[in-house]
Amino acid sequence: MTNSPTSVTQLLGEIRDVGQDKQRGGYSRFTFTSAELELREWFVAEAQRRSMDVEVDRNGLIWAWRAGAGGSLDDAIVTGSHLDSVPGGGEFDGPLGIASALAAVDIMDFRGVVPDRPLAVVAFPEEEGGRFGLACLGSQLMTGAVNPDRARNLRDSDGNSYADAFARAGLDPAHMGRDDEALRRITAFVELHVEQGRGLIDLSQPVAIGSSILGHGRWRLTVIGEGNHAGATRMADRRDPMVAAGLIISAVRDIATAFDEARATVGRIHPIPGGTNVIASRVDVWLDARHPDDAVTAELVGAIHDRARALAEAEGCEVVMVEESLSNSVNFDPRLRTQLEAVLPDAPVLGTGAGHDAGVLSTEVPTAMLFVRNPTGVSHSPYEQIEDADAESGALALADVLENLLGSSSPVPGAARTSIHEQRRR
Amino acid sequence: MTNSPTSVTQLLGEIRDVGQDKQRGGYSRFTFTSAELELREWFVAEAQRRSMDVEVDRNGLIWAWRAGAGGSLDDAIVTGSHLDSVPGGGEFDGPLGIASALAAVDIMDFRGVVPDRPLAVVAFPEEEGGRFGLACLGSQLMTGAVNPDRARNLRDSDGNSYADAFARAGLDPAHMGRDDEALRRITAFVELHVEQGRGLIDLSQPVAIGSSILGHGRWRLTVIGEGNHAGATRMADRRDPMVAAGLIISAVRDIATAFDEARATVGRIHPIPGGTNVIASRVDVWLDARHPDDAVTAELVGAIHDRARALAEAEGCEVVMVEESLSNSVNFDPRLRTQLEAVLPDAPVLGTGAGHDAGVLSTEVPTAMLFVRNPTGVSHSPYEQIEDADAESGALALADVLENLLGSSSPVPGAARTSIHEQRRR
Repeated sequence: MTNSPTSVTQLLGEIRDVGQDKQRGGYSRFTFTSAELELREWFVAEAQRRSMDVEVDRNGLIWAWRAGAGGSLDDAIVTGSHLDSVPGGGEFDGPLGIASALAAVDIMDFRGVVPDRPLAVVAFPEEEGGRFGLACLGSQLMTGAVNPDRARNLRDSDGNSYADAFARAGLDPAHMGRDDEALRRITAFVELHVEQGRGLIDLSQPVAIGSSILGHGRWRLTVIGEGNHAGATRMADRRDPMVAAGLIISAVRDIATAFDEARATVGRIHPIPGGTNVIASRVDVWLDARHPDDAVTAELVGAIHDRARALAEAEGCEVVMVEESLSNSVNFDPRLRTQLEAVLPDAPVLGTGAGHDAGVLSTEVPTAMLFVRNPTGVSHSPYEQIEDADAESGALALADVLENLLGSSSPVPGAARTSIHEQRRR
Repeated sequence: MTNSPTSVTQLLGEIRDVGQDKQRGGYSRFTFTSAELELREWFVAEAQRRSMDVEVDRNGLIWAWRAGAGGSLDDAIVTGSHLDSVPGGGEFDGPLGIASALAAVDIMDFRGVVPDRPLAVVAFPEEEGGRFGLACLGSQLMTGAVNPDRARNLRDSDGNSYADAFARAGLDPAHMGRDDEALRRITAFVELHVEQGRGLIDLSQPVAIGSSILGHGRWRLTVIGEGNHAGATRMADRRDPMVAAGLIISAVRDIATAFDEARATVGRIHPIPGGTNVIASRVDVWLDARHPDDAVTAELVGAIHDRARALAEAEGCEVVMVEESLSNSVNFDPRLRTQLEAVLPDAPVLGTGAGHDAGVLSTEVPTAMLFVRNPTGVSHSPYEQIEDADAESGALALADVLENLLGSSSPVPGAARTSIHEQRRR
């Protein structure tokens, strides 16, 4: 094909109205809600327009294929990202990687590239955990990092199970789980993503190569006290879990600040019953904690748990802490990274504090990432931004990388395959 | 009529299944939702079964009338309470007063009482403010304490306005507002309510006469920071409004404890966007504060505002505080109370920290309250309780009081009418 390539900006323009959140600002594109389903349909249509064969696998991942020589799907180069968002998130976190992959296909077609190897663009469901609380759920199901029964029983805030949402999206939840065949096909996975930080701003560069992902996890702390009337209960008679939760939230910040390079956040809290004139009986608080050294993450979370217990006890409350997810730190495949550096000699190499499906897949196949400059440095927020020119630089960089990997006559290095078990989820 | 009186327990049993909240426990009977509408229908049917004439007034109050001699509705004795609940509240807060009023009508009928004065049982909408955030909304509209435009524009958490909810309940929101005719008719208002405290437990008595209501108010504190990614943002670069909110919540407790007899509570908090892996951009925190001395309440709230500002500033955040409601302390009409004490010589006299429609009406007409023992002392909670025998003692006490007021040949004292403006909402 020699059609002129579609720009990333034009592709993103097609979905700019989908899932806008008037209450929070930005976008709420929760997995398998009407907004995300509309994005999935858009992706399928755009892939088919590019003569790609589309299949949805048993974990709900959408694969758009260009088969290799002789129709083979083996030894594939795969790129992609996700379509879902956090509540009130930005426009680019996820969709930029999908739109850039489609644009990169156009660029390679325009250049007349006809590779031997197959190419796939993949969209992962529930990367953000914005609806069912477990980030990278699609990729974690694919690698077996999450038990399919646990996944099926995850609930959204309205009490719908993941299995039900999956079924209502027309998918069969019975066959979720580790997908050896899909993993075996992938020779390399490259995810392009908006940068979630200020690295490229400081370096005045549009595109970076990813080096690593901070280890991170989520824990739910349930603080249990005694519900009562806000007017009729004397201060001295209270066992108020909101007071304990308030102290725990500030302790999380203080403890994380004391650990060099650590990050710990409470962004979500849910008091029960949640009335203005009611002392809560219970408060759920979610902790997000990250550190490059997984041992330090464990130490950090242990220190937070100890402090939370002491603070709750002083208020006559109890605290129960449950790990909802935990991913170790990821160092992307060094040989694949070296290959990207050769293709993109000007691109700096940067780590990230954000989790990605590429991090989950890195335990199984060689993975790499590209980051595109975000002029605000802000993400998971309506203020996340991308300049049009940077978006096109990103697509061009991705096309160059894919062309190189697809055309490479030597097998793409599989170093990560030897260290699968070192990086597995604890 | 000489039918045997229906027990309070039997009446409450008829509505025990309505509005149970499986998620929070207890009951969520929010105004003009299907649960509360079902209770309103039940009340209308029970009143009609007692040959009472039912009308719904322009503020959504349901009135069940027994006209006086010659069909007059003037110089009426009125009792009643509300049917709505807080989120996850108890079974008795509100409905006990309605069921006891119906049972008291039965008791008087059984006794063959045929008074000259008219009697009304009234059900007030949105007493708890559990849906639209403003407590005693029905009685505040009736007395003009709240502006009808403000009331119409109040929103529930799904963004529905009070006007819309009112219209969907089949009522016309255009004519809300002060109802001089209804107020003029009331010679005395007596509200029976489950006790929200441990006074009657300590005194081993089933029923008390109310003396006063603590002044109370609600304020919304909006803490504004900078939303960002929980993993990609260094601790030092944050302006996290959740940390500020956490510190404010514990400061509220500390400040209230330092003021003798004060009560201050945060039971509701709403971070935006509210994702686990997102630093919030904004957090709304609701403050409930009360003190018997209105000047001290103002001082308490001022101290909390000052501390909140300082705590937010130290986190690089701002705080905006808005008064959502404020009711001054109420001392019930002393002459009416003396009359109740003569009818119920064994009943102790107790104050309450909880707000009531009787408190709102006290600025306009002589009002009194009766409290029925709550063996847990806990309210606004599924653990709120009433013993069957105490419920029947309450209905009997109410019947005695109503019979005395209805039968009194001397006009019921109107002392409160002279001090209307002293007690008005500031």
